[in-house]
Amino acid sequence: MIDFPPSIQNLIQSLKELPGIGPRSAERIALYLLEETKGTKQRLVLFLNEIGTKIKLCPRCGFYAEDRLCSICLDNSRDKHCFCLVIHPIDVLKIERTGAFRGLYHVLGKKISPLEGHDPEDLPLTQLLQRVDEEKPKEIILAFGTDAEAEATALYIGQVLKKRAIKVSSLAMGLPAGSGLEYADSITLSYALSGRREL
Amino acid sequence: MIDFPPSIQNLIQSLKELPGIGPRSAERIALYLLEETKGTKQRLVLFLNEIGTKIKLCPRCGFYAEDRLCSICLDNSRDKHCFCLVIHPIDVLKIERTGAFRGLYHVLGKKISPLEGHDPEDLPLTQLLQRVDEEKPKEIILAFGTDAEAEATALYIGQVLKKRAIKVSSLAMGLPAGSGLEYADSITLSYALSGRREL
Repeated sequence: MIDFPPSIQNLIQSLKELPGIGPRSAERIALYLLEETKGTKQRLVLFLNEIGTKIKLCPRCGFYAEDRLCSICLDNSRDKHCFCLVIHPIDVLKIERTGAFRGLYHVLGKKISPLEGHDPEDLPLTQLLQRVDEEKPKEIILAFGTDAEAEATALYIGQVLKKRAIKVSSLAMGLPAGSGLEYADSITLSYALSGRREL
Repeated sequence: MIDFPPSIQNLIQSLKELPGIGPRSAERIALYLLEETKGTKQRLVLFLNEIGTKIKLCPRCGFYAEDRLCSICLDNSRDKHCFCLVIHPIDVLKIERTGAFRGLYHVLGKKISPLEGHDPEDLPLTQLLQRVDEEKPKEIILAFGTDAEAEATALYIGQVLKKRAIKVSSLAMGLPAGSGLEYADSITLSYALSGRREL
C-alpha cells in the first residue's frame, strides 16, 4: 500500500517519540509543517539546536543556565541564607511562580527510588554538603512532594543536614487551595488536622 | 519573576505554533527534549530539514514526492484509465488506505471558497484539463467531501469535465459503516434512501 514518502514517515516517527503525541497528532503536525510558510519549521530547527548547545545545568545550584551561572544564582537580591532543595530543575520554576520564595535553590537531580536502583548512597550529596559548608545557609527547605520515594529522600537528607546544625523544614501538607473537605482524602485531612493553625 | 532561559522559552514558543499543542504540552515536550539522551532531538532536526529539502509535489498529480514523480505515478501496475480527483495531498492516502482504488490521482490543491476568496476561476483547472487531454482517462471520480464548498467545487468541475465526454462520478453518500439509524442526521438519511440498492 502507498504511504507517505520516507522523509515524511521519518518525521512522523520521531514526532511520535515526544510525550503526549500519538500517531494521529504526529501525522497532523507533520502535514502542518509540510504546508506552513510562516517559518515554524526553521524556528524549530534553530531552537532545537540551541537548547542542545546553549543550555547547561548551573554548576552551583543545578537549574537550567545559559550563562556561567543561572539567573537566580546571578541575582544579588536573593536571600542567601535560605536554600530550597528540589528534585528536578522544573521544580525551581514551580516555586518561583508562586512568588513566595526569595532564597536560593539547589537541584538534587534524583530521589531515592529502589525500583530504579537509586539507593540513598546514590544521592549526589557531596556537592550539596560542600555548598552548605561554603555558603552556610541558616535554613534549608525540602520541597520534594509527598510520594513515598520523595518522603524517604526527605527523611534521609533531613538526617544528614541536621548533623550540621542547620534548620531543616519541609513543605506543609494539608488541604489544597480552593477545595472543599469532600474532595480531600483521609491522609491529607489527617495532615491538615495535625498541622492546624490558631486563628 | 524568573522563567526558563531564553532558548528554552523560544523552543516552547515555537512548539506552541504546532496544531494541537497548548502551553502545557509545549513545556512538557521542551523539558523532555532537554533531558532525553536517545537522540530524538537530533532526529527531529534532521527530518525537519529533510522534509524542507526532499519533499515536493509530484508535477503530474500533485501528491507528495521525493523522486521525479510520486510513487503512485511511478507504479506501472495502476489503472491509467481512472482518475480520482481530490482536494488535498493527504486525501490521496485516505483513499489509498481503503485499498479499494487502483487508479491514478489528481490533487486539486484548493476548493471554491468565497470566504477565503477562492472563486471558480481560481481553481487550477488548466493543469487538470491538459492532463485529461493527454492521458485520456475514461472515468474521473470526484472525491471531495460533502461540505458546501466541496459540493460547489464538485458541481463546477463536473460541468467542465462533462463537456469533454468523460464519465464523471462522485463518492456515494449514505450511512457510515458500523453505525445505527439513531445517529444519522436527516440529510444523510435522505441520501441513503435515495441511493438505496437492491439486494
